[in-house]
This record gives sequence, C-alpha cells and structure tokens, in this order.
Amino acid sequence: MTAVLAPRALDRCRTSVLPAMRAAVARLDPASRRVTGYHLGWTEADGTPREGSAGKAVRPALALLSAELAGAPAEVGVPGAVAVELVHNFSLLHDDVMDGDTERRHRRTVWSLWGEPCAILAGDALLALAAEVLLESGSPRAGTAARELMVATRELIRGQVADLSFETRTSVGLDECMAMADGKTGALLGISTCIGAELAGAPPAVVDALRDSGRHLGAAFQLVDDLLGIWGDPATTGKPVLSDLRARKKSLPVTYVLGRGGAPGRALADWYATAPGPAGDAEEDLRRAAALVEDGGGRAWAAAEADEYLRRAEAALDRVALPPGPHAELTELGRFLIRRTS
Amino acid sequence: MTAVLAPRALDRCRTSVLPAMRAAVARLDPASRRVTGYHLGWTEADGTPREGSAGKAVRPALALLSAELAGAPAEVGVPGAVAVELVHNFSLLHDDVMDGDTERRHRRTVWSLWGEPCAILAGDALLALAAEVLLESGSPRAGTAARELMVATRELIRGQVADLSFETRTSVGLDECMAMADGKTGALLGISTCIGAELAGAPPAVVDALRDSGRHLGAAFQLVDDLLGIWGDPATTGKPVLSDLRARKKSLPVTYVLGRGGAPGRALADWYATAPGPAGDAEEDLRRAAALVEDGGGRAWAAAEADEYLRRAEAALDRVALPPGPHAELTELGRFLIRRTS
Repeated sequence: MTAVLAPRALDRCRTSVLPAMRAAVARLDPASRRVTGYHLGWTEADGTPREGSAGKAVRPALALLSAELAGAPAEVGVPGAVAVELVHNFSLLHDDVMDGDTERRHRRTVWSLWGEPCAILAGDALLALAAEVLLESGSPRAGTAARELMVATRELIRGQVADLSFETRTSVGLDECMAMADGKTGALLGISTCIGAELAGAPPAVVDALRDSGRHLGAAFQLVDDLLGIWGDPATTGKPVLSDLRARKKSLPVTYVLGRGGAPGRALADWYATAPGPAGDAEEDLRRAAALVEDGGGRAWAAAEADEYLRRAEAALDRVALPPGPHAELTELGRFLIRRTS
Repeated sequence: MTAVLAPRALDRCRTSVLPAMRAAVARLDPASRRVTGYHLGWTEADGTPREGSAGKAVRPALALLSAELAGAPAEVGVPGAVAVELVHNFSLLHDDVMDGDTERRHRRTVWSLWGEPCAILAGDALLALAAEVLLESGSPRAGTAARELMVATRELIRGQVADLSFETRTSVGLDECMAMADGKTGALLGISTCIGAELAGAPPAVVDALRDSGRHLGAAFQLVDDLLGIWGDPATTGKPVLSDLRARKKSLPVTYVLGRGGAPGRALADWYATAPGPAGDAEEDLRRAAALVEDGGGRAWAAAEADEYLRRAEAALDRVALPPGPHAELTELGRFLIRRTS
C-alpha cells in the first residue's frame, strides 16, 4: 500500500499543540494522568516514555486552521485544539468500555489493562478538563466556545446512544444511520472546524460557515471510516480484518444495501441475522459478506456520498470570504481525510 | 425513629429548582432523558410519572442560599443549583456502575436496569449539560462559575479514584482518607455553597469564604455519612443494614480505629482481612465488627470531628459580612445536615 503524505496542517499541529496537551494532561489526578498518557501513545503501559503517533490529531489541526481562517494566528486556536482533542479522547475511552473493545491503534485499550472504573474516571476527567482549558483561554468568547463544545459533546453522546440501539435492532433506516453518524462524528468535527474562529472573535457568519463545513466533512469522514472498517488494511487501520462485519455493525454501506433489498440485500440480511459459530466467523464468510455489500452497491454508494459531502464541505466555505492560504490548507486537509487509508 | 424536620431552605429549593431541572433534563437525548427521569425519582422504570422525593437536594439548596448570601434574589442562583445537581447525579450514575451497586434510595440503579453503557452515557450527558446550563445563564461571571465547577468535578473524580484504590490496599492513612473525602464530597459542596454568589457577582472574599465553609460542611457531611453507613437505619438510609462494613469499606471511623491500633484496632484489621464465606457475612459478625469500631473510639471520634468541621464551616462565614437572614438559614441547614438520619 502506498503511503499517503499527510498535509502540512497535520504535522504542524503535532508540534504546536502537543506541549499544551501535555500541560493539560499533567493537571489530571495521577491515575487519570497515567492512563491518558498511555492512551495518547506517550507512554507504555508501565509508564516508560514512548515514541510514536497518538493518532492523526485531525481535530486539533482543524481548530488551529479555523483560527487562521478568522485571520488570527494559529496560537489563538490552541486552547480550542486541546479541548476538542480532550473531548475526542474522552469519547474513545468510554466507547471502548461500552463496546468491550480490547484493542485500539494496535495497542490494548485502557479498560482492558486497568479495569472499567479507571477508563470511566479518566474519560470523565478529560471532559471536565476540556471545558476548563477553554474557559481559561482568556478569549472574550471562551464561554460561547465552551457552551458550543458541550452542545457538540451531547450530540456525540446522542450518536453513541443511537449506535448502541442499532445493535439490538434488526432494521435501521439509512436516514437514522446518517443522523447517527452526524452526531457521532459530524458534531465534533463541526465544532473543531469553528472553535479557533470563535476564540478569535470571528463574525457569526464565518463561524457558522466553518461549523457547517466541518459537519459535512464529518459525514464524509464517517463514510470513509465505514469503508475502511470493511475494506481497510488491518496493518494500517489497526483493526482486525473485516472488523465491522465481524461485529455485525450496521455501518452506512451495509445499511444502504440492507435498505435497497434485491438479491444481495436479502442475502446480506440473512447473514446479519445469523450468529457466528462458536469459533467465530471464518474469514471466507466475512469476505463473502463484504462481496454482498459490494454487489449491492454499498461500496460505490458510500464512496460517492463521501465525495458529495466533501463537495458540500467545500461549498460551505464559499459562503464567506476567507484568507486564501488557510482556505487552501483546509481544502487539502479535507481531501486528504477522505483519501486516507487508516 | 423521630423524623427530623427539614429546614425551609430544602423545601423551597424543591419548588423553585425543580422546573429548571425538568427543563434541563428535557434537552437530553431520549434514552438519557428517560433514565435520568427515573434516576431522579420523577418516573418509574416504565416511564409512568411518580410522586416522591428525588433525594434531599442539598446542593441546589446551598446554591440558592449562596445567591442570597451575596445579596441577590435566590433566582440568580438557579442555573448554579441545576448545574451542581446535574454534576452530583452524573457522579452517582457513574459511581453505581463502578461500585456495582444494584440499589440506591430503595430503587434499582440505572445500570442494573438498562445496562452499563446507558448509565455511562447518561452520566456523560449530565456533565456536559451542567456546564451548558451555567454558560447560558447570562451572568457575566458564568465562565468563572463553569470553570470552578469543572475544577470541583475533577477533584470529585480524584476522590473517587482514591476511594477505589483504597479497596485494594490493606493500609490507608487517616490523612489520605480525609483528603479523599474532601475531594469526593467537599469539592462539590464547596462549589455549591459559592456558585450562586459567583453568578451574583459577589466580591472574591465572599465567594472564597462561602466555598471554604461549604468544603468544611462537606467533610462534616461525609463523617456523618460514614456513621450512617454503619449505624444508620436501613429503612431511612435506603442502604442494607451495616452496608459499609459488609462492603469492607475503609470509611473514616474504620480508618481511625485501624490506625489507632490497640485490641479493637487489631481485631478489626483481622476481620477486614478475612473474606466473608460463600453465604456472605452473618449479621451477627457485622454487629461484632461495628462494636469494634465503637470500642476503638471510631464512632465518638467521627461524631466529634463532624462537630469540629461544622464549627469551622460556621467560622468561615464570620470572615465576611453576610445578610443575617440567609446567614441564619445556612447555619440551620448545616446543623440539620450533620444531625440527619438518612
């Protein structure tokens, strides 16, 4: 697989947000600090420092860019970048508990190493800390930014509630599924893409255009994520091969095929209704299910929808006048995100 | 048992904060709204409306009083009252998951009825909502109040982290145990007792005096809670008889006796080190353990300490000039809380 070069916005973000992230995490109680450092990839489970990536840091990169899109220096967006990354990781820590996932990014999850209470409390602490960091930023609009972040957090929770409810339901509509993705992914990408502008005191029209753009980007991001959950390379994604099918996840491409019916839709519905045997699914069966999603048009549909949402994300930016440099960087970052391989 | 009459501050609070609490909870996603309504005692598990108490609402009562202590109408404190009550219930929902408790206030806990994910997500939503409600209050000091509430929330989490760690340790110092109680109970009572004054724009000296007073009151409250966990009447407390001993909880009176040594301390340490048989503890054994805590001076010590912390809570108020009516009400409420029976 060819490596896709990350845009400058992602690289720059790692260097300028990391110290602020470290300073924020240093304020946690010792147990939450230790497990958060591990979760973020800064340390091994025994506390030894570790080199390497703590994920793509997409949300902080968007937050810095959004300050620049409002004509301010990127640094103005730093508290926003830290806050959205803290909220993102709060949700990952709790989701891993709820989903019972034992691995993330090729490493054991926090709850699987230190127990559920530890992961729940660390997540709780990160959510509180996110609001704190914003409210300490000194921006006259910090309160507005914090309120919007909490609203987005509740939308994220609403999305996770819906996602969990889908697991026990036999039939899920495509509209419900898109609404779930909008909550679970769109809300936080929306606030990430406008929080720096908010802190910079941008006019409401600019903040709104950026938020809308980020939300559409979130939908595109989720569609690509769902494609990777079926056809992604485990070596790159860090998830087991065909993981979303193995988990019988009603992802967007699957929901599309199930709703469309026809021979592949009916065969896929039958397969989804059948529990795997005691030894789990044979890879061969999973590949057959993946072929049904492809034959039913789910793969092509999701790819086309991702393109369409990216187009809307770019169109939202055209509603306002933005400085051309950061505008081009945001466009580059968006395009990178829907062409990513992990 | 003679019923203790609740001070006016508690009654008034139920009527003036309840509509705002209902309006806030109505904004939650449907699943979190349903389980929160049940948890707060507003509905049965099937959603049928229910009469009755949703706990004492101590924290909202303190928040309203604190607005009046700053010379403002009680209504100024309402967003603070709602916010502290939401944070309190966020922590109860998550604590019940972590402690595996199946009953609270004579009713099944949320996780035991609807599963852990549901309780985790509802708790998460309440924490975010608490910050939202404050930040929408329109007070020029809303941001400061929200930041302080988040700081207190992290102290509360720090206290719960310590509490959980004590379970697996054989020896816990009395200082550590008091610090844990200060985090777990004192931090939220501290912010409850000053948040209305903060929203009312009180001078820092007044806010600080009120916060200190609430923190001391929190320590007294926890000492009384620990006494009730051993000697409380199950019909009143809603907990099983001798529940804290059954759970081998290293509560403050127990920690005092264990640290003091002597014959009762050694006998208590032996008993704490012995796991109950397959049928659980015989009530007779639990009563013997309670007698050891009493013989070792733990009961008298905790009662005297509660009085001492109440004295400090009252002394903190004397640092500033406060309107006499609300001042007397706060004193009455504090005294009621350390003489309570549930």
